[in-house]
Amino acid sequence: MTDTTPRTALTLLGLGDMGTALARTWLAAGHRLTVWNRTAAKAGPLAALGAAVAATPAEAVAANRLVVVCLLDDASVGSALDGIDLTGKDLVNLTTGTPAEGRARATWAKERGARFVDAGIMATPSMIGAPEAGGYVFYSGSRGLFDTHRAVLEVPAGARFTGEDPGHAALHDVALLSAMYGLFAGVSHAYALIEGEDISPKDLAPLLSEWLGAMGFFVGNAAERLSSRDFTTGVVSNLAMQVAATGTLVRTAQEQGVSAELISPYLELMARRLAADPAAHGVEDTAGAITLLRRPDRGRAGAQAQAGR
Amino acid sequence: MTDTTPRTALTLLGLGDMGTALARTWLAAGHRLTVWNRTAAKAGPLAALGAAVAATPAEAVAANRLVVVCLLDDASVGSALDGIDLTGKDLVNLTTGTPAEGRARATWAKERGARFVDAGIMATPSMIGAPEAGGYVFYSGSRGLFDTHRAVLEVPAGARFTGEDPGHAALHDVALLSAMYGLFAGVSHAYALIEGEDISPKDLAPLLSEWLGAMGFFVGNAAERLSSRDFTTGVVSNLAMQVAATGTLVRTAQEQGVSAELISPYLELMARRLAADPAAHGVEDTAGAITLLRRPDRGRAGAQAQAGR
Repeated sequence: MTDTTPRTALTLLGLGDMGTALARTWLAAGHRLTVWNRTAAKAGPLAALGAAVAATPAEAVAANRLVVVCLLDDASVGSALDGIDLTGKDLVNLTTGTPAEGRARATWAKERGARFVDAGIMATPSMIGAPEAGGYVFYSGSRGLFDTHRAVLEVPAGARFTGEDPGHAALHDVALLSAMYGLFAGVSHAYALIEGEDISPKDLAPLLSEWLGAMGFFVGNAAERLSSRDFTTGVVSNLAMQVAATGTLVRTAQEQGVSAELISPYLELMARRLAADPAAHGVEDTAGAITLLRRPDRGRAGAQAQAGR
Repeated sequence: MTDTTPRTALTLLGLGDMGTALARTWLAAGHRLTVWNRTAAKAGPLAALGAAVAATPAEAVAANRLVVVCLLDDASVGSALDGIDLTGKDLVNLTTGTPAEGRARATWAKERGARFVDAGIMATPSMIGAPEAGGYVFYSGSRGLFDTHRAVLEVPAGARFTGEDPGHAALHDVALLSAMYGLFAGVSHAYALIEGEDISPKDLAPLLSEWLGAMGFFVGNAAERLSSRDFTTGVVSNLAMQVAATGTLVRTAQEQGVSAELISPYLELMARRLAADPAAHGVEDTAGAITLLRRPDRGRAGAQAQAGR
């Protein structure tokens, strides 16, 4: 029996690797799709699959209420859409950007009469349309837009709504990616240490995976401590002990001829936290050092305070 | 029925938090134990549990063939044992140190007629004698010593032999700890980014754990690539794409008023790898950047080459 449920028609601006992957999944799922790309040639293969190809962004936007944008950067979104009538449109911005860009773009869309959600894609193009790969997209902004179009948005990858602050999708995206690069940095340093030794990276790998899995305890533990601001109860390995042991890590890197650039900043952060008040902070969990990273006079909260908001 | 298997008698030098935890588990398991500590008062509670307390390191060493050392640092091992007859002794060094210190101490022990293993403890004192906590100890050096005393060594925590190079226990230890601090650094940065936002660390925690669990794929993937030296086949997200996206991470940190000190070094390492040969390295997996960390003219291999070994 053929599924005759009408599929939402939508417009997609931007046919880079990610945009093309998105377009293919929507077409494969039976959605009518209008596409536009600055370089028109990219649209050819999608036209062969049934996509309507618009000559201009204005024509593409006019074609459908739901307009998905996946361009190079936020400036490209402005270049493509400035001056175009967005009244009554539902704009989904999959373009990579910062939280502030997401917030500014939300204001810009509202001024033009459009509903808006910003998004952060936690997937590579190869993971789009492949649910088993586990990729998903963070969305934030208009809850109404998200609820209206959730089924369409879930065609290429899972959808997670992070709230009505349009900056929060990008903030979640960047937070997870940043944490990932920390993991990559630590693992990279570990492998560099054994280079030239009679130890195979393949033999170290399961030990590393097991250890990092156990140390993933830090994620939940730090969240609890940051919420309660209790950095001292039930500490397994306190800051004073950890700082005392860092010399061995730095000297080992030196012995092995490995730059300590990837691990030194965290070791130095712990040392700064301890030095600020050895008696008080020496008995803390290392999560206490997180409080040193945010500059109280800087950033969004500071900027808002200065602006009198 | 009482277990009447004779337990190996042993000596332990050093009664800090770790040494004391070790002593308690050996005594609880029925081993005759002779202890020595520079500050004698630390031995009192253990004497009450049945430990023999030696007045000097020489007396403690003379008491048993198996001598376990758990002191502050490698210099303390020299101070305690230099000039003492170690002929026929089996020396297990649980003192924290670098691979080079482990190797030098092995040579030193051999010159004195002792068998030797160095060790790296992957546990806190609270995890000693608590198998469910998952702590364990890396050992390297004399395989004969390890095989003879494995059962005794496994009383406080699991034992893993990493080979006959006496530097390899410390190297495994430091490699895993270094990787852990990378993980901590990335997670710390992520939590700093959301400080002051209407996002609870406890809500971010499960997203972080899930994401980092998935990205743990890097551990095995990098090991394969470092072994094969193939950084380009089957790349999911190539270096050029990743470097292009790092600007968003840095600008988001700036917007949020968060120092990027913990993630910048890895982002810069990726950028250096790309800049060295954009065409060749742009299509690589990020694991290729690991090769920049080791200085070919430095470290153990370089030092050995210079010494004509």
